Order: sequence, then structure tokens, then C-alpha cells
Amino acid sequence: MILKTSSSLIETLRDRRQRLANLIDFPAILWSGTTSPRNFPANVFPFRANSHFLYFTGLPLRNAAIRLSAGKLELFMDDPQPDSALWHGEMPDREEIAQIIGADVAKPMAELELWTEEAATIAVQDAATWTQQSQLLNRWVLPLKSPQDIDLELAKAIISLRLIHDDGALAELRKAAAVTVEAHKAGMAATTHAQIEAQVRAAMEQVIIANNMTTSYNSIVTVHGEVLHNEQYHHSLQPGDLILADVGAETETGWAGDVTRTWPVGGKFSSTQRDIYDIVLAAHDACIAKVSPGVEYQDLHLLACTVIAEGLVNLGILQGNPQDLVEINAHALFFPHGIGHLLGLDVHDMEDLGDLAGYEEGRTRSNHFGLSYLRLNRPLRPGMLVTIEPGFYQVPAILNHANVRSQYQDVVNWEHLSQFADVRGIRIEDDVLVTQESRDVLTAALPTQASQIEDLVCR
Amino acid sequence: MILKTSSSLIETLRDRRQRLANLIDFPAILWSGTTSPRNFPANVFPFRANSHFLYFTGLPLRNAAIRLSAGKLELFMDDPQPDSALWHGEMPDREEIAQIIGADVAKPMAELELWTEEAATIAVQDAATWTQQSQLLNRWVLPLKSPQDIDLELAKAIISLRLIHDDGALAELRKAAAVTVEAHKAGMAATTHAQIEAQVRAAMEQVIIANNMTTSYNSIVTVHGEVLHNEQYHHSLQPGDLILADVGAETETGWAGDVTRTWPVGGKFSSTQRDIYDIVLAAHDACIAKVSPGVEYQDLHLLACTVIAEGLVNLGILQGNPQDLVEINAHALFFPHGIGHLLGLDVHDMEDLGDLAGYEEGRTRSNHFGLSYLRLNRPLRPGMLVTIEPGFYQVPAILNHANVRSQYQDVVNWEHLSQFADVRGIRIEDDVLVTQESRDVLTAALPTQASQIEDLVCR
Ligand SMILES: [Mn+2]
Ligand SMILES: [Mn+2]
Repeated sequence: MILKTSSSLIETLRDRRQRLANLIDFPAILWSGTTSPRNFPANVFPFRANSHFLYFTGLPLRNAAIRLSAGKLELFMDDPQPDSALWHGEMPDREEIAQIIGADVAKPMAELELWTEEAATIAVQDAATWTQQSQLLNRWVLPLKSPQDIDLELAKAIISLRLIHDDGALAELRKAAAVTVEAHKAGMAATTHAQIEAQVRAAMEQVIIANNMTTSYNSIVTVHGEVLHNEQYHHSLQPGDLILADVGAETETGWAGDVTRTWPVGGKFSSTQRDIYDIVLAAHDACIAKVSPGVEYQDLHLLACTVIAEGLVNLGILQGNPQDLVEINAHALFFPHGIGHLLGLDVHDMEDLGDLAGYEEGRTRSNHFGLSYLRLNRPLRPGMLVTIEPGFYQVPAILNHANVRSQYQDVVNWEHLSQFADVRGIRIEDDVLVTQESRDVLTAALPTQASQIEDLVCR
Repeated sequence: MILKTSSSLIETLRDRRQRLANLIDFPAILWSGTTSPRNFPANVFPFRANSHFLYFTGLPLRNAAIRLSAGKLELFMDDPQPDSALWHGEMPDREEIAQIIGADVAKPMAELELWTEEAATIAVQDAATWTQQSQLLNRWVLPLKSPQDIDLELAKAIISLRLIHDDGALAELRKAAAVTVEAHKAGMAATTHAQIEAQVRAAMEQVIIANNMTTSYNSIVTVHGEVLHNEQYHHSLQPGDLILADVGAETETGWAGDVTRTWPVGGKFSSTQRDIYDIVLAAHDACIAKVSPGVEYQDLHLLACTVIAEGLVNLGILQGNPQDLVEINAHALFFPHGIGHLLGLDVHDMEDLGDLAGYEEGRTRSNHFGLSYLRLNRPLRPGMLVTIEPGFYQVPAILNHANVRSQYQDVVNWEHLSQFADVRGIRIEDDVLVTQESRDVLTAALPTQASQIEDLVCR
């Protein structure tokens, strides 16, 4: 990345610190983390700085920490080793970095231990760093342990900031969205010449890499959309298949896009594919139309369930009253996940803190099958960015399950369903910002209408 | 990956086990490892199985272990969780995997603790796994600790196997080489339309992704080749620049390619660039021509040093007798790294074991500046795969260093050197197999001649 001093970054960061200082009266120390080894210590995965650290520094520094106290920013990092210039080139030193991020003080890492008293922190994912956090703070700081005491207070304070995206965040999120949109267009355009899924994935990720970004999560690009977390790319593309692509770009400073589209390999949806596609799209559009301050996100999920149930009744796949069908979770046979999640520096924003960010204080996950996968349960507020991603899947593990078959034998027309065998999985996902009045779909430049999708594939 | 039973995989693995059994008389347990978290626990880096595990199973299984004892293969892994089919699709169960790899026995992971007595192991890189290894074996098994006792014996035995590639390994290594070659050709062809380094990188990695492979290390694609481990891709491409691209593909089962080429952004080397390029190529060709059983790899390194020194004397950059210049390390001002390394399942093969694999027993790293970076110091034997990668760099941190300037004031013609300012970094790297008679360059399909490179850029 290009490192230069910009007054807007410095102001954005100062404002974030000030807002944090208004919420907590103890110091916070945030670590950036270090690289994780792949197959041997010198061959590492690409570095990803901790998201909370990124929020307050805007730079993916390695092996650094910051101490935030009453609006003050102290940077702790070591200058590059003398011989590191040979291997890594001339790197900015601590003082230069301090200037870029507007730090008040810059000290070597070794001095951090003098400044840990009564400091709260949040666990970083890599073992080397959470070990260091635990040692310096003299308590276990573990990524999978819920934060306690001041760490919990800090987590809640940071959540309240990161939930509502400021202009600096939105500028980055719009960049991520724009490149994500281009990646999907490239994937569609590459499909008719592709033989296997991997070739479509390659066309999409090429766009992301060419923009000097990374993927914000491991891409899903598959003709087996019914496998929700499919990370295989070897299947050949057959004319009647649908490709489901869930691919997002992440900017150099960590802000994520997250988009899914589903398109026909041959460029034309079959009539059965089109029927189901239009139901998923109706759910997608209905939810997005309702996004606005004060709306309960869970109600959007239930709205999607109802629209899908309604559509499936109209198609003759489900039988009964849509509301009743949702009550008994019949929609979840085909839509077994939540309508979406928070989006920001993490693709499931702040999920490192479990459900603390996703769930309003006092709320916990439902153990109701249709709701247990819901990652977000809060009233929407201006500045929140959420995904809206309804889907329809024929998951053999669900639909062929004997208990499911008997429980839902009267509400599913299994015989009629078999005519829709060429629809294994469809999902349509966009990134939607809650605004003062209503909403702004950051990924709106990517069409959703079936006919528009067909045009993009056949272009 | 496509999982199916193949008699050739089963035979390859049986043969490797049998050869291991001829070397050790205690059981070995090898773990595959698990995913490493990126920014939150559910968002992980792409899984990479441990290389020693891959060598004896051929499959990148997650959270599995094998016990090798007297040629017998016991597989320990859990069957997929009941609801995992929803998220990950139908996965082969333990018994199916056991059949594919020809395991004699297959047991759940929980039973492994009954079979740990007197077993040796090798540390896996991820913390979750080395913690488990340490607990089950009741001793510290750490990736950065040198193996001791039976672990050391096991490491040496596995090294003696993995040093000499069998037909199964070579088939994979040739696949990695072929895709690596195509990636470089794509990078060259994309250059004249590219504005920044990232676009060239994207064209190269697209080829790797489209072949359902991964990069075997983080790509270097830069106009600042003088930064040896450059992982920045934002620089714009200027007409007079050279692009140095060190990019390799890794097959689905973990076998690596590792190739570097340097080409002119504008499609034509300047005369100064061409002069230096031809010196590096002369060193490359001279070393490869010498690869053959019995040759000391260190002698290839010294040969490259001499050829480079000679070439720089002929160009008037160095002054003196080439042998003497190498004696005083004058070549290392411009060629400060080793001539190459082992290649196999790891791009620096078996470097997880430090220098155990790279250095013949009884030899250790030199503290002589020109030799201290040499990663391989063994006599070559048929079946060994090594890289040959001489280079020329103008590293400001070296050349502008006051001590260096004074120490080498008489042997470097600094004034004349300044005419070569448009040569920041050049490296030419190929993957060379030692054969019974001589050598086989696995990456020979990618040209090295300056004029051929120019043709590929301008095609
Ligand atoms: Mn999503
Ligand atoms: Mn190499």
C-alpha cells in the first residue's frame, strides 16, 4: 500500500478515538497481530491485521500495538531491523508511521509492558499474538473466550462505534463494493468459455487481485450451490447448471464486500430455474425495500421466509397458508440460513466477539431451527451496513431425511418438487447501508433481474 | 479435489511407508493440521495440510492423523458431523478415505491417544495442532524447536525419502511446473496492457486459480526487484522498468513449482538491462549445465558467483580477477542470496526442519557473507529437485552503505555502475531435477533468452 500522510485519515482516526474516550474511562491496548505460518515458518499466509486495530489506525501494520487513552494514541512498534532493507526494502520507521496515523507518541514494542496497567484488550486470532497479550496483561486473552470485565466493556464500546459506519469507513466500503461488482461481472462474462468452476473463480479473483485487493473470505463458485459452504472448484460446468458465486473484495485497509449472484451456465435460465429465481429475487427485493431505521432485522428475515413460502405455494411446491408454513418452518427446508449479517472490516462484522455485535443487548440466539442461524438481531440504525441474502436450496441431507419427510409430508408436494431438480441452489446477496431516510444499496450496480443476468453472461 | 481410489496412489504410498519402515523401528504419528483463523474464527485461511502428512497420504485431509508402523498405515479421523452435510455437502467418511489411501485400519480421532506409546512425530505449524501433539505425546512438540531423540530420527528418515522424488511425486511436480510456466507466459502477455504490478500478478494467478491450484508462496511481481521479498503490488509500470516475477503454482496435493523471470515493461530490454540480463542468464545456464549426480550444490553456487563476477568485470563494473573478487565477496554486493534450494511439497522443501534437509549431516551454515544465505549444501543425487536462481540487484541498503563503499572502493567502478541505474533487479529461476545421467529442467518450456522473453511480452 502507498503510505502517505493524509489529513482525512488523521481526522477520521482522531474522531474514532474521541468517541471511544467518551465511552470508557480506562486505557485500551489493541494489537495488530502477526503472520500465520502456512507449511513452514518462513512461508506464511498473507498478513491480515486485526480489525479492531485497523479501525483505530487505518494501516495493516505487523507486530504493532496501540494504546488508546482519553483520546490519545500511542503507537508501539519496532523500527525495521538493519538488514530488513535488503529483504523488504526501505520501510517507513516508527516515527513516520506515527505521523501518518496521527499518533501522539511512538515507542518501541519493548516499552509496552510499562503501560499495561488497568488496560483492556481484545484477543487477536493468531497464537503468537494472543500469547503475548496474555503475558503482558497477566490474564488469559483467548480468541475463543468471551471477554470479561473491562475487556467486555471495551468490546461493547468498540461495537457501538463500528456498528455505525463513518464517512472514512463508507469510502472504503464503497471501494470494496465496486470491485466486488466488477468481479461478478467478469465471472458472468467468463462462464460461456469455461469448462470448470475454477475458471470462473479465476476470472472473478483476477479482478480483485488486479485492483490490489484480496478476497474478504474464501470464494464460493460452484454448480453445487446447495452445499452452503462449498470450497471445491473442480466440478465441470454442464449446460443446464446454475453457478452460484459468493465472492467479495476486501480493500488494502481491510474493508469488505460480500455479494452473491446465481447465473445459468448456458446463459439462459430454464423455466423452472427462472420460477425459483424470481421467488428468491422477490424476497431479496422485499427485504431491501423495508430496510430503514427502526426496522427489526429479524423482521426482514421473517419477511423473506414469508415471501419464499408464498412463492413456493404459488408454484405448488408447498401447500397451505404461507404464514402457517413459516410457523412450522416449512420455508426452512429450502432456506435454512439467516437473511444476512453485519458487514464492515469483517465479512461477518465483529464476529470475533461472538454474538456481542450481532445481537442487541439482552437478546440471544433462538433455538428455533429457522432462526438459530440468524447472525443479526438488532433494530436497524442509520450507518449500519447489512447483507440481504435470501436463497433457495435443495439440500439432500435435509430433503431426504426420513424425519423431515414424515414431518412435512402434508405440506410439501414432493412429486411436484421433483420437476425442479435443475435448481440445486440459488442465492442473491447485496450490501445494504441503512441511511437516515431509508437505504443505499452499495452493490446496486450489479443487476439482479434474471434477464439482465442472462445478458451479462451472454455479452 | 476429486476423491477416487487409484491403485497408483495406493502403491506409491505403500512404497513410501515400506521405505520408511526400513529406516526406523518405532511408530510415527503424523498430523494433518487444521485451518488457521484470519480475522475471526469462522473466516479462515485456505487449509494447507502438513507436508509430511501429505507425503504419506496424498490427500489434504483436515484434522486427521496417521500412524505408520512397520509399513502399516492407520488412519485416525472423525466422520463428518451429522449437520456438516448441510454446510459442506456429503463428504467421504473415514472408511472411504481409508480405502482411497490404502489404510490398513481406520479409527476415530479419540482413539489416537491409545496408540501414542514410543511414537515419534514432527510438529505441525498451526497452534491448535501442535498443542494437541504436545498433549498426546506428553512432551513439547513445537514448530520452532529442533526435533530431539526419536523425533530427530524420524525427521532424518523422512528427509532421506523426500529428498529423492519418486514417480508419484514427479508426476505432481511436473503438473506444478507446467501451470507455473503458463502463469509466467500470461504475466508477460498481460504486461503491455497493465498499469500497475497488481494487474500483472492478477493475470499470472488467474492461470493458477483456473487450474484449481494455489500459489506455493506469496507471489513477487514487482518493478522493484531489488527488494528481494517484495510483497507490494501497487507500483505503476513505467516504460523503462523491468518486472521481476517470482510466482509458483502448487497442486491440490501440495507439490510446488517455483519460477522467476524478469522482463521489460515496454517489451524491449535497454542495452544496459540486456547486458546484465545476459550475465545472469550465463550464470543460470552454467549452473544448470553442471547439475548432475555427485556435484556439490555449493559448487554450483560458487560457479554462479564466478560467472557473475566475470561478467561484471567484462562490463567494467568490477575490476580485478573474478576468482579473487569472489574470494572477497565482491559478487555478493550484487548477488547477495544463495543459488537456490530444494523443491518438493514445500517451496523450500522441508525447511520446517530448519537446515536438517538442506545441509548434509555434519555440515552447518557458513558465517561467510556470501555463503550464509545458502539453503542447500549437499552433493546432488538422482531424484533431487533443486532451483537454480542467480540474480543481480542494486540494493541501496548494500551499495550505499559507507562501510561497503570504503571496503570495495577499489574493485567497484561506481561511476560506471551508475550507467546501469535502469537495472534494479534481475533473477532467472528454474526447477531442475537431477537424473541418473544429468538433469531435466522441469520448467524448460518457459524461455530464458532475452529475445524470446521480448517476443512473449510483445505477442
Ligand atoms: Mn454474506
Ligand atoms: Mn526459489
